[in-house]
Amino acid sequence: MYKPQATYKVPGFSGIRTFMHLPYITNDLENVDFAVIGVPFDTGASHAVGTRFGPSAIREMSQRIRGVNPALDIDIFEFMSGIDYGDLLVHPGYIEYSYEAIEEQLTPIFEKNIIPILLGGDHSISLPHLRAAAKKYGPVSLVHFDAHSDTWRSSDPRKKYSHGNMFSLAVDEGIVDPYSSIQMGMRGSGPNPNLESSIELGYEVLSTDDVKKLPIIELCEKVKNRVGTKPVFLTFDVDFLDPIYAPGTGTPEAGGFTTYEAIQMIRGIAGINIIGFDIVETLPDRDQTNLTALHAANIIFQVLSIIAKKKSLEVSLQL
Amino acid sequence: MYKPQATYKVPGFSGIRTFMHLPYITNDLENVDFAVIGVPFDTGASHAVGTRFGPSAIREMSQRIRGVNPALDIDIFEFMSGIDYGDLLVHPGYIEYSYEAIEEQLTPIFEKNIIPILLGGDHSISLPHLRAAAKKYGPVSLVHFDAHSDTWRSSDPRKKYSHGNMFSLAVDEGIVDPYSSIQMGMRGSGPNPNLESSIELGYEVLSTDDVKKLPIIELCEKVKNRVGTKPVFLTFDVDFLDPIYAPGTGTPEAGGFTTYEAIQMIRGIAGINIIGFDIVETLPDRDQTNLTALHAANIIFQVLSIIAKKKSLEVSLQL
Amino acid sequence: MYKPQATYKVPGFSGIRTFMHLPYITNDLENVDFAVIGVPFDTGASHAVGTRFGPSAIREMSQRIRGVNPALDIDIFEFMSGIDYGDLLVHPGYIEYSYEAIEEQLTPIFEKNIIPILLGGDHSISLPHLRAAAKKYGPVSLVHFDAHSDTWRSSDPRKKYSHGNMFSLAVDEGIVDPYSSIQMGMRGSGPNPNLESSIELGYEVLSTDDVKKLPIIELCEKVKNRVGTKPVFLTFDVDFLDPIYAPGTGTPEAGGFTTYEAIQMIRGIAGINIIGFDIVETLPDRDQTNLTALHAANIIFQVLSIIAKKKSLEVSLQL
Amino acid sequence: MYKPQATYKVPGFSGIRTFMHLPYITNDLENVDFAVIGVPFDTGASHAVGTRFGPSAIREMSQRIRGVNPALDIDIFEFMSGIDYGDLLVHPGYIEYSYEAIEEQLTPIFEKNIIPILLGGDHSISLPHLRAAAKKYGPVSLVHFDAHSDTWRSSDPRKKYSHGNMFSLAVDEGIVDPYSSIQMGMRGSGPNPNLESSIELGYEVLSTDDVKKLPIIELCEKVKNRVGTKPVFLTFDVDFLDPIYAPGTGTPEAGGFTTYEAIQMIRGIAGINIIGFDIVETLPDRDQTNLTALHAANIIFQVLSIIAKKKSLEVSLQL
Amino acid sequence: MYKPQATYKVPGFSGIRTFMHLPYITNDLENVDFAVIGVPFDTGASHAVGTRFGPSAIREMSQRIRGVNPALDIDIFEFMSGIDYGDLLVHPGYIEYSYEAIEEQLTPIFEKNIIPILLGGDHSISLPHLRAAAKKYGPVSLVHFDAHSDTWRSSDPRKKYSHGNMFSLAVDEGIVDPYSSIQMGMRGSGPNPNLESSIELGYEVLSTDDVKKLPIIELCEKVKNRVGTKPVFLTFDVDFLDPIYAPGTGTPEAGGFTTYEAIQMIRGIAGINIIGFDIVETLPDRDQTNLTALHAANIIFQVLSIIAKKKSLEVSLQL
Amino acid sequence: MYKPQATYKVPGFSGIRTFMHLPYITNDLENVDFAVIGVPFDTGASHAVGTRFGPSAIREMSQRIRGVNPALDIDIFEFMSGIDYGDLLVHPGYIEYSYEAIEEQLTPIFEKNIIPILLGGDHSISLPHLRAAAKKYGPVSLVHFDAHSDTWRSSDPRKKYSHGNMFSLAVDEGIVDPYSSIQMGMRGSGPNPNLESSIELGYEVLSTDDVKKLPIIELCEKVKNRVGTKPVFLTFDVDFLDPIYAPGTGTPEAGGFTTYEAIQMIRGIAGINIIGFDIVETLPDRDQTNLTALHAANIIFQVLSIIAKKKSLEVSLQL
Repeated sequence: MYKPQATYKVPGFSGIRTFMHLPYITNDLENVDFAVIGVPFDTGASHAVGTRFGPSAIREMSQRIRGVNPALDIDIFEFMSGIDYGDLLVHPGYIEYSYEAIEEQLTPIFEKNIIPILLGGDHSISLPHLRAAAKKYGPVSLVHFDAHSDTWRSSDPRKKYSHGNMFSLAVDEGIVDPYSSIQMGMRGSGPNPNLESSIELGYEVLSTDDVKKLPIIELCEKVKNRVGTKPVFLTFDVDFLDPIYAPGTGTPEAGGFTTYEAIQMIRGIAGINIIGFDIVETLPDRDQTNLTALHAANIIFQVLSIIAKKKSLEVSLQL
Repeated sequence: MYKPQATYKVPGFSGIRTFMHLPYITNDLENVDFAVIGVPFDTGASHAVGTRFGPSAIREMSQRIRGVNPALDIDIFEFMSGIDYGDLLVHPGYIEYSYEAIEEQLTPIFEKNIIPILLGGDHSISLPHLRAAAKKYGPVSLVHFDAHSDTWRSSDPRKKYSHGNMFSLAVDEGIVDPYSSIQMGMRGSGPNPNLESSIELGYEVLSTDDVKKLPIIELCEKVKNRVGTKPVFLTFDVDFLDPIYAPGTGTPEAGGFTTYEAIQMIRGIAGINIIGFDIVETLPDRDQTNLTALHAANIIFQVLSIIAKKKSLEVSLQL
Repeated sequence: MYKPQATYKVPGFSGIRTFMHLPYITNDLENVDFAVIGVPFDTGASHAVGTRFGPSAIREMSQRIRGVNPALDIDIFEFMSGIDYGDLLVHPGYIEYSYEAIEEQLTPIFEKNIIPILLGGDHSISLPHLRAAAKKYGPVSLVHFDAHSDTWRSSDPRKKYSHGNMFSLAVDEGIVDPYSSIQMGMRGSGPNPNLESSIELGYEVLSTDDVKKLPIIELCEKVKNRVGTKPVFLTFDVDFLDPIYAPGTGTPEAGGFTTYEAIQMIRGIAGINIIGFDIVETLPDRDQTNLTALHAANIIFQVLSIIAKKKSLEVSLQL
Repeated sequence: MYKPQATYKVPGFSGIRTFMHLPYITNDLENVDFAVIGVPFDTGASHAVGTRFGPSAIREMSQRIRGVNPALDIDIFEFMSGIDYGDLLVHPGYIEYSYEAIEEQLTPIFEKNIIPILLGGDHSISLPHLRAAAKKYGPVSLVHFDAHSDTWRSSDPRKKYSHGNMFSLAVDEGIVDPYSSIQMGMRGSGPNPNLESSIELGYEVLSTDDVKKLPIIELCEKVKNRVGTKPVFLTFDVDFLDPIYAPGTGTPEAGGFTTYEAIQMIRGIAGINIIGFDIVETLPDRDQTNLTALHAANIIFQVLSIIAKKKSLEVSLQL
Repeated sequence: MYKPQATYKVPGFSGIRTFMHLPYITNDLENVDFAVIGVPFDTGASHAVGTRFGPSAIREMSQRIRGVNPALDIDIFEFMSGIDYGDLLVHPGYIEYSYEAIEEQLTPIFEKNIIPILLGGDHSISLPHLRAAAKKYGPVSLVHFDAHSDTWRSSDPRKKYSHGNMFSLAVDEGIVDPYSSIQMGMRGSGPNPNLESSIELGYEVLSTDDVKKLPIIELCEKVKNRVGTKPVFLTFDVDFLDPIYAPGTGTPEAGGFTTYEAIQMIRGIAGINIIGFDIVETLPDRDQTNLTALHAANIIFQVLSIIAKKKSLEVSLQL
Repeated sequence: MYKPQATYKVPGFSGIRTFMHLPYITNDLENVDFAVIGVPFDTGASHAVGTRFGPSAIREMSQRIRGVNPALDIDIFEFMSGIDYGDLLVHPGYIEYSYEAIEEQLTPIFEKNIIPILLGGDHSISLPHLRAAAKKYGPVSLVHFDAHSDTWRSSDPRKKYSHGNMFSLAVDEGIVDPYSSIQMGMRGSGPNPNLESSIELGYEVLSTDDVKKLPIIELCEKVKNRVGTKPVFLTFDVDFLDPIYAPGTGTPEAGGFTTYEAIQMIRGIAGINIIGFDIVETLPDRDQTNLTALHAANIIFQVLSIIAKKKSLEVSLQL
C-alpha cells in the first residue's frame, strides 16, 4: 500500500514535490490503485500556451492536502494505494509523435487496472489518454467539465489536431460513446458556441446557463443517469471555473463556476465508475497567485475521494 | 459593412490590437453602426490613477471574443457594421481642455448616428461624452452600473471636476434627465454613501444591497420601465463588479457583483434604446491577471449583442 | 475624541499610513474607545509565513475607508473615539517570549476599557490576546470565523505552541468558555478535519457546508443566542474567505466564503458585546493584488460599525 | 534632537511607516535639521502615472536603513536632528493650484533653515520646491541626476506645465542659476534628446555617454567645481538609474546607471552646500519587486550622509 | 514616406499599438525602406513557451521611442520610410507548415528591397526568414547575438526542427555563409556548450567570456571585418542579455550582458549592410516588469538607427 | 555513480523536481560524492521571512542546468556521483530543536565523506551545518560571500540565535577557525556595519567597496592564500548579489555584485578544499521573476564545477 509520506510530523512545505507527498514510484506498479502522472505537453494550445509547467505547479500546490475528506467522511488511503509516477516523455512541438508516446506509456497503466490521474498539459492529451483507455475498456463514457465543448471541426487538413477538437475526433475514432456521455459548462463566443457539432455527434450538452439553472443535486443525478455503470472517463478543464478561480489558463471565459460549486458537483457524482481522469489547462505563467494550481489540486482530491468512497461502499457491501 | 478581420483561420493572438480585431478606420464613417473609441484620460481620478492605459489593455484582452452570442442567439455582425476608431486626442493633466477636445471629437460620431463605445479612462469622460450626446439627442436617460453614484458636490471652487461628481454636473447642465435615469450598485463608506445627493437630483438609486435583494429579471424590468423608449446613455464603471473580478481599478469597494450577474443584467435590459456607451476605470497597472480588462471586453461584447438583438428584432418586424 | 484626520479635503492616498487615517497615539489613552494595534508576529505559522507584514499592509489598504456605514445607518465616530496605537514589540523566532510581551502590552489597554482591534500576525496571537482579556473579563465567549478550528493537539512536547492549537490551549487555560462559544467555516483536509477535538472541548462548530446551508440571518441568530450578553472575543482569520478573496494567507482552503457573505454575517451579529477583536493571517507577500488586505480592512470597518451601532442604541435608550 | 525611534531592539518591520522610523512631527520644528516630506502629486506626468503613491512606498522600503554609513564613516544622527513631516496637501488633477499649495507649505520649512527631503511625486514638484527655496536663498544651483533634461518647451499655451519642462521654467523665473548648475545622465530618443534647449539656457549638460566615459571621481570634481559654495538644490529622478534598478517609474530609458554607480556619485560630491533635495518619479504600481523604492530610500540615505558629513567636518573645524 | 503618426502633440500612451506609432500598412509597399513584422510563432521552443505574444508586447513598449538617436546624431525618418506590416499568418503547433507560410509571406518583402524587422516569436523563425532572404541575396552573413549558438544537431529524425538548431540547418541548406558569419555571447551548460558544432560548421564563435574580455570597439571591428560588405542577416536573441535585463524569455542564462553594452555593440557595427533583422524570444508571460519588451524595442531602435546612419552617409557621399 | 536522469532526450521542464534532475536517494549513500539537501527552515530570519520555500524554488529553477561547464572545461558527472537527498526534517518556530535536528541529520552525511550542498533556508542553518562539519573535520575555514558579516552580538539573553550572529557563535563554539577564514561583500547601514565585531573575532573582512577595488583574480588569490589546504566551509548568502539579481531575499542591500562577478569569483577559487557548502536566504515569495532561485542554482553549479575540477586534477596527477 502506497500512501503519502508526509505525516503531521513533517511540515507540508518540506520535501521533494510529488503530488500530496505520495511516493515517487516508476518501477513497481503492483497493488497500485491510482497513479498521478504529469503530461507536460502543450503544443495543441490555440491561444495562450505554457501548460507544460502545469504538472509541476499542481504538485507544488498540493502540499497541504491530506487524505481525509470530511464532507464525504472518507479517508482516501484507507481504501486506496496511490503513487506519483512522474511525468510522461513528450515531444514539444510534435503533436502526433507525442500522442503516440503518451498512448504507449499509458497502456501498461490501464493494463494493470490502475486509474491514471493525469496532470495536463493542454486538453488535447485527452485524445491519447482515451486511446489507451479504449484499448482496455472499449468506448468509454465521457463526463466533461469545461467552458468549451472541444468538438470543433478543423477545416484545414494540415492542422488535424488541436485542443479544440479532440472530442469530435474521439467519437470519430470510436473510443468515446457519445450517447452515454455529457458535456457541461459551455459558454463564450468562440467556435461552436451554439454547440451544434456536439449535439450532432450525440453528446448531451449543458451550457453554463443550463447548468446554473439546475440545482446541483439534479445536475449530478442527470450525469449519473447518463453514464450508468459504464466505464467513465472524467475530464476537467480548469476553464470550467470562472476566470477569477482559474486565471492561469489559456482560454478563460468570463462568467463561470465557483470552486465551491465544482467541488459540490464532483462530490455529487460519487458512485460513477471512473476508469481514467485528467485535469488540464493549468498554465502557471498566468497564475500569479497559484490559485489555479491550488484549485486543480483540490479537484483531484475530490475525485480521489469519490473513487475511494465507491471502494469503501463496495467493501462494506462485501462484509 | 465592417466586421472583425480575424476569422477562425487567423489565431486570436495574432495581429495589430484593435478591439475584437475590428478594422482600424478613422476616415470613412459611412455605413458604420458603432465605433469603439479609446479615451486615455485619467486626470479626473481621485485615488489610484493610470486608466490612460485602459483602452490598450481592453483591446489586448478582447482578442478571443468572436461575434456570436449564443445566450441571445445573435451574430452581432450580421446586423451591425463596426470599427475601431483608435483613441481620441486628450491632454493629460488638463481637465477642461481635455473635456472640450473629447466633446468636439465625439460630435461628428453622434452626427452620423454611430453609437460610440468608449473605452475609458476615468469615469469623468462621461461628462464630455454626454455633452456630445445631448447635442444630438437632448437630455438622455442614464443607466448607470457603478459602486459609486458620482453625484458628489465639490466644495472647492478651484476643483470643479473629478470622477466623483459628473452625474450631478450633468443634471445641472441639463444633459441628463434624472427622472428617467437609474443608478445601481452603490456601496462603500466614501462620500455620499447614503446617496442623498443622487435622490435630491431626481435619480432612482439602488444600493448594492437593494440590487442583491431583487431577482435579476425584476431589476431589469425596473430599468426598462424607468427608461422606456427614450435615448439611453449606458455607462459601466468596472468597480460595479466585486474587486476580485475587477482588481484593476482605482477605487475598489468590497462586496460587489460577479461578472455572471453583470452579464445577466446587461442581457436582461435588451430592448432599451442605447445611443452611447462607455466602460470606464480599467486600470491596467493594478490588473496583474488582466481579468479586469478581460471582463470589460466581455461587458462590451454583451452590450454590442443587445444592440444587435434590438436591430435584429426591428429587421424581423419590418419583414 | 479621536477620529480620522483625513477629511474629504485631504486625498485618501495622502499621509502617514495609520489605520483609516486615525491619529497615531501611544501615550494618551483617556477617552479612547478602541485602539487599532499591529502585532507583527508570525513565528507560529505552520506553512507559508510572513504575516509580520500584515499590519502595514492592512493600514495601507484602509486609506479609502471613511466612517459612515450606510447599511447600518451609522457614523462610527459620532459614537466612538479611536486611535492607531502602532505595533506591539514582538520577538521574531521566539514564541513564548513574544506571547509574554504581547500579553503584557495589551493588559493596560483592557484595563482602560479600550477595545483592542488587533492586526495580525499569525492566529496564535489570539492566545496572549485572550490571556490579557481574561485578566479583565474572566473566561470570554469566542466567536470565531475561520477555515480551521485551530484546536489541534500537539503530540510533541517540544512544540507546544503553533497557530493551529491556541483554541484548545485557551480552553485548557480557562480563558475561553467553550460552552458559550462558536466556531464557523471549517473545511479542508488538514489535521482535525472532522472537528472532533473542538466538539470534545465544548465548542459549537459549524463547517463551511453547515454554514452554507443556513440563511445568514439564521446563522447570526444562532451566534447571538450562543453568546448572549457575555463578553465576546471576536476573531476573524482571513482564510474564512474563499482563497480568491484572500489569496494572501498562509493556509488557504478552496471553497470558502465571499466578502459579501462575510460582511452580511458581521452586520448580522450586531448587538453582541465585543470586548476584543483580532483579524489575522494576512500575508502580504502572497497578496499580489492587495485584496486580502483590502478585505481585512473592510471587515474591521464592519466590526467597528456594529460596535458603534450598539453604542448608538445604548445612547438612544438613555435619552 | 529627533532621531529614528526604532533601535536594534525593535524589529525593522515593526511600527507605523515613517521614513527610517523617524518621529512623525508636524507642529514642533525647532532644532530640526532636515524634514522628510511626501508630495503625492503626479498630475504633471506625461506617460505612466501614479507617483502619488511614491512617498508611501519609499517609507515602506526605508525600514531597514539605520543611521550609520560606514563608507563615509558617519553616524547621521550624531550630527543632525530629523523628522518625518508627513505629506503636503495637494490637489490631484489641478496643477497650478497644487503648485501654489506646495510652495506655501514649504516656505516655513525653508524659513526655519530646515533642509526639505522631498519624496515625489512627479518631477514637476521641483518647480514649487524651487520657488520656495528661492524665496529664502535667491537663485540656486541645480545638481540634477536624470535621464531627461526636463528643459522641453511647451508649444501649447494651454499646457504650460508638465514634468518635462520645469527646469526651463525655473530659469525663466530666475529661481535657478543655470551657469552654476549641471545636468547629468540624459539619454533616450524623446523630446530634446540633443539637449540644445538645456545648453541654450546655460546649463552644463552631460549625457549618459558623457558620464560613462568619466571616472566617477572626475565627474564629482566637475560637479563640485561647477557649484562651488553656492546653495545647491539637489534633484534625483529615479530614471537616472537603469530601468532594471528602477522599473517603477513612468518614463524609463534603457541603458542607464547602476545603484552602485549612483551611490558612489552621491558620496563623491560630499562637501557641496545642499539646501533642498527631492527624489522623484517612483511609481509603485510598476515596481513589482519594490526595488525602485528601496533604491530611492538608499539614495536619500546617501544624501543625508553627505549632509551630515559636511556638518561633522564643520564641527571638527570649530573645535 | 511613412513615418510615426504620433508627434509630440499626441501622448505616447495614446493610439492603436503599432511599433513606434508607425502607420499600419499592408497593401501599399512602394517607397518603404523597412517593415516591422510580427511573427507570433513559438512551437519551436524547447523550454518555456509563449513568445507568440512577443510582437504585441514589443509594440506596446515601443510607444515612447521617437525617431532621433542623439548618440549617432541621426533622425531615422529623415532617411527612411517605415511601416508596421502587422503579423504574419502562422499555424501554432505546426512547424513545417508555419515555416512555409512565413517564407512565402516574406518573399515579396525582400523582392521590394524592404528590410524586414521581425518581431519573434521563437528563434526558429530565423530559418524561414533566412530562406526568404537567400532567395533574394544568396547565402548571407550571419551576425548573431545570443546566449546559445543554436547549432545543436537533432538526434531524432522525427524532431527535425527546434529553436536550438536552425543555424546548423541554415548552413546545411546553403542559405548562410558561415565563413563570413559570427556568433557572440554563448554561455551556460546546455547542449553544445563547448561550441564544437558551430566551429565545425565554419562559424566564428565568441563565448560570453571571450566577448567580455574584448573592448567593445574591438569586438565591433572584428564583426565588421568578418562580414565586410556582404549582405548581413542580423539576429538578436534577447537572452544575449543578462536575465535581469531580459527575464521574459524561455531559456535565460545567468551572467550575460547589460543593455548598455548591447546598445554600444549595435552602434559600433554601424556601416554593415543589413538586409534583414529579427529580434526573438521575448516571452511576455515571464516579463512581469515589461523590461524585456522595452529592451527589445530599444535594440530595434538602435538597429534602425545604424541602418539610417548608413543611408545618411551614402546620401552625403552622393552630394 | 549517480548522475542526472534527464538527458537531452528528456525535456528540461519534465519530471519530478530534484536538483538538476539528480536521482532522489535517501537510503543508499555509498559511492556518493555530494548530496543536495534542502533545509526549509527560516525561524532565524530577522526581517522578511519565507525561505522555507527556498529549496523547492531552487530545485524548480535548476531544471535547465546540465553537467558541462565550458569555462572550466569540466563535465561534473565524469568525476562525481551526486544525489538529491530531499529535505531535512525541521521544526518551524523552534530554533534550538531545529538546530539539533539539522546537526543530527547531517552527521552521517559528513561521516560518509559526502559533501553536503545545502539549500536554505535562512542563514542560521550554517550553525548546525558547521557543528556537524566540525565533528568530522575539527574547526573549519569559512569562506563567506554575503552583504552582512553575521557576527552581530545579541544583547538579549532570551534571544540567543538569529541569522545575524551565527558566525560569532561559531567562533565561540570553536567550530570555525577565524584566522584562516574570510568574509566578503559586507555593506549597508545595519548592525555592525563597520565590521568591528568580525575583526575582533579574527576574521579577515572585505567590504563591498574593498572587493570592488580588487581585480577578481587578486581577490581569489587572497582567498586561496587565506585558507590554504585546510577544510573549507563555503557559504553563500544570495544577498551578496545586488538586489536586482536577488530580489527574492529578506534583507537586500543596494549596491552589490552581478552574477557574472560572483561566477568569476567562484571559478577563481577553484582548488580550495571544500568540505561543505550552503546557499541561503532565497525567499521565493519576493522572487517574482524567479531569478534569485535561478541564480542560486547557477552558483551551486559553479561550486560543483570547481569541486569536480579539483577531483579531475587529482585524478590526472594520479595517472
